[in-house]
Amino acid sequence: MTDYGKLAQQVMSRCDELGRISQSDAYLDRRYLTPEHQRANQLVGEWMMQAGMITWQDEAGNLCGRLESKVPNAPRYLIGSHLDTVPNGGKYDGMLGVLAPISLIQALTEQAIELPFHLDVVGFGDEEGTRFRSTLLGSRALTGKWPAEWRQVQDSDGIRLPDALKAFGLDFDKVKNAAIDHQNLLGYLELHIEQGPVLEDENLPVGVVSAIAGAKRFDLSVRGMAGHAGTVPMNLRQDTLCAVSEMILVVERVAQQYGIVATVGQINNRPNGVNVISGNTQFSLDIRSEFDEQRDAGLEQIMTEIHAIAGRRNVILEIEPTHSATAVHCDATLQGALRSGIEHAGHRVLTLPSGAGHDAMAIADICPVAMLFMRCDRGISHNPAEAVMTDDVAVALAVLNHTLQNLA
Amino acid sequence: MTDYGKLAQQVMSRCDELGRISQSDAYLDRRYLTPEHQRANQLVGEWMMQAGMITWQDEAGNLCGRLESKVPNAPRYLIGSHLDTVPNGGKYDGMLGVLAPISLIQALTEQAIELPFHLDVVGFGDEEGTRFRSTLLGSRALTGKWPAEWRQVQDSDGIRLPDALKAFGLDFDKVKNAAIDHQNLLGYLELHIEQGPVLEDENLPVGVVSAIAGAKRFDLSVRGMAGHAGTVPMNLRQDTLCAVSEMILVVERVAQQYGIVATVGQINNRPNGVNVISGNTQFSLDIRSEFDEQRDAGLEQIMTEIHAIAGRRNVILEIEPTHSATAVHCDATLQGALRSGIEHAGHRVLTLPSGAGHDAMAIADICPVAMLFMRCDRGISHNPAEAVMTDDVAVALAVLNHTLQNLA
Repeated sequence: MTDYGKLAQQVMSRCDELGRISQSDAYLDRRYLTPEHQRANQLVGEWMMQAGMITWQDEAGNLCGRLESKVPNAPRYLIGSHLDTVPNGGKYDGMLGVLAPISLIQALTEQAIELPFHLDVVGFGDEEGTRFRSTLLGSRALTGKWPAEWRQVQDSDGIRLPDALKAFGLDFDKVKNAAIDHQNLLGYLELHIEQGPVLEDENLPVGVVSAIAGAKRFDLSVRGMAGHAGTVPMNLRQDTLCAVSEMILVVERVAQQYGIVATVGQINNRPNGVNVISGNTQFSLDIRSEFDEQRDAGLEQIMTEIHAIAGRRNVILEIEPTHSATAVHCDATLQGALRSGIEHAGHRVLTLPSGAGHDAMAIADICPVAMLFMRCDRGISHNPAEAVMTDDVAVALAVLNHTLQNLA
Repeated sequence: MTDYGKLAQQVMSRCDELGRISQSDAYLDRRYLTPEHQRANQLVGEWMMQAGMITWQDEAGNLCGRLESKVPNAPRYLIGSHLDTVPNGGKYDGMLGVLAPISLIQALTEQAIELPFHLDVVGFGDEEGTRFRSTLLGSRALTGKWPAEWRQVQDSDGIRLPDALKAFGLDFDKVKNAAIDHQNLLGYLELHIEQGPVLEDENLPVGVVSAIAGAKRFDLSVRGMAGHAGTVPMNLRQDTLCAVSEMILVVERVAQQYGIVATVGQINNRPNGVNVISGNTQFSLDIRSEFDEQRDAGLEQIMTEIHAIAGRRNVILEIEPTHSATAVHCDATLQGALRSGIEHAGHRVLTLPSGAGHDAMAIADICPVAMLFMRCDRGISHNPAEAVMTDDVAVALAVLNHTLQNLA
């Protein structure tokens, strides 16, 4: 019998240890191709070897470990997540999805359990995109989809990606060799903290991800007429902060009506003086759904209503699209295996979309993907207060184990 | 007959000339107790003397000129405005109210018209309060109401008010001598650009001010819960930007209902990221009316509604009062004299409140006050684009002349 509680404790203490490798003394910050990335790969690689895996680092700096199958010409599954963090991040976002499989594999090895497929654990070098302001560099190397433009991207110190790779012992021109053969690739599984409050609200340790939402983003600007807060009567104003307030409430109401999420997170107001009527207000719109059509229908409704507000208030509205991605749907068979694992562990199965992006989004280009979400404290993430419960890790390990047996 | 058109041209060209005395090469900026203040007093003093006035500078640096009455023990009227500007200000705000009376008096002198009262023109040294961040220093010296704390105020270079006075040839301890004897003081008149769009909207050159609005100001802060724009469903959010948007629209609607002006001019949102739900949003409230009771009734309604919004949205609302002033009502007799002057000039009489503060607010402590507003282009003020029409200046001069004859 596998002692999931004990394994979970090992995962928790390893998250603590890995969480101390940081380029900052003040908080956790571990970015792609830094010396701390190298130290993290070194440490996690040792744990992989202790678990009976063979290990290597690919041409993009991703750390890989294989529990090798004895079956001749065995196909393979990938399981993993990322080892990089945002500045002042938490120690479970990404890392949990690498360290939990390693501990599980250690148990499999100790019990001499064999699988009919190679099980490759991947610790992606970059998911957050903090260093080069482009996300998913690690997983997109595995899919062979690094765009040529990435040769030009640079970090905040002006270091270009090719030079950062070189300093890490890698070569931009050879990153294409990190692309994996997907002929015999059966699928990709990812365990990740939810980074949202749904599982906690439902009082569940884990849940199955139905899809990773596709987001669209816009920059919006409203221009009216600044004026003196004392001298311009209400009916002669073109107050852009009032116009934008009305637009923000439209975004909120339409999102609720259409069952999507839509957020105005950023607002910049001018002149922004206590005794001055606002003459120019800029804001952002981020709108997501696991169903692209539902999102686009909500978006159309929002656009119609905010244009009407601008017309009625005699202000000028300008809209610039800044981002667009389609939703990635998780594979039905892999979702079914995860569901069965959750039922076997004695928990109600909740299926929920992921509003955040994950490595699985990139990997979906080359094979079926599925994700298991784990409850985290108050949904807090990208924050040192990020926290999970050991008991939940134990449940996640049990679910993953049952899922692997199921797939076997 | 007085040629008001010719006088108005003189006023306009003098506004241009005075508007070139600036401590900045790039724009008009003339602050209290600077060498430019001294040059302005010098130039305007010369124009006063040309107009047949005796002149002096009082102990607070205000420039004064008198058209002396030959009547023994004559009482006096004050007329004036301020000679300081905001940084990057316009050349009519304040200055027009000093230069127009001087040109009018020049005409009276040339026509040997005598008045039964002394007519003292005052060019206040500070109204805007830009240098020492306290307003109305000039007019409050005339009323004998400089608070002892002003000994400590300092400008952005760390120069204290007493040292600035000394450099100007004045003495903080003698400013009290600038207080004028109000036993035989009959009243104060002030001509000022409207700094708002009402006269332009009504297609009128001038209007009579009913009262100078009393303003109350507040800093408000709303705290909720920041979160990931993709992962937190709409129904689990405590989005402070949405809450504040609803509050801003309450402020706008209640102001319209109560016939007052209320403005949220400043908003500061955190974390203010495109993909982050807002967790803390601060904003300002400025609320004004010529009727304190009406303002306070509207304010109570706003406070009731925004507390209800905070409760319903489960966010914490904190409110800090930062400013409170009562409205100053203009004198009925002086208003009547101005009205009669406007009718005599052949224009419809519009009475309107002043939402902005003026020297008359301070002078109201010692005598009846009244103000004549003049139309300005699009209500723009505190801006180099500030503009007036020569024809409107001619009307204002005619109205002032008739008013003075009326009072005589």
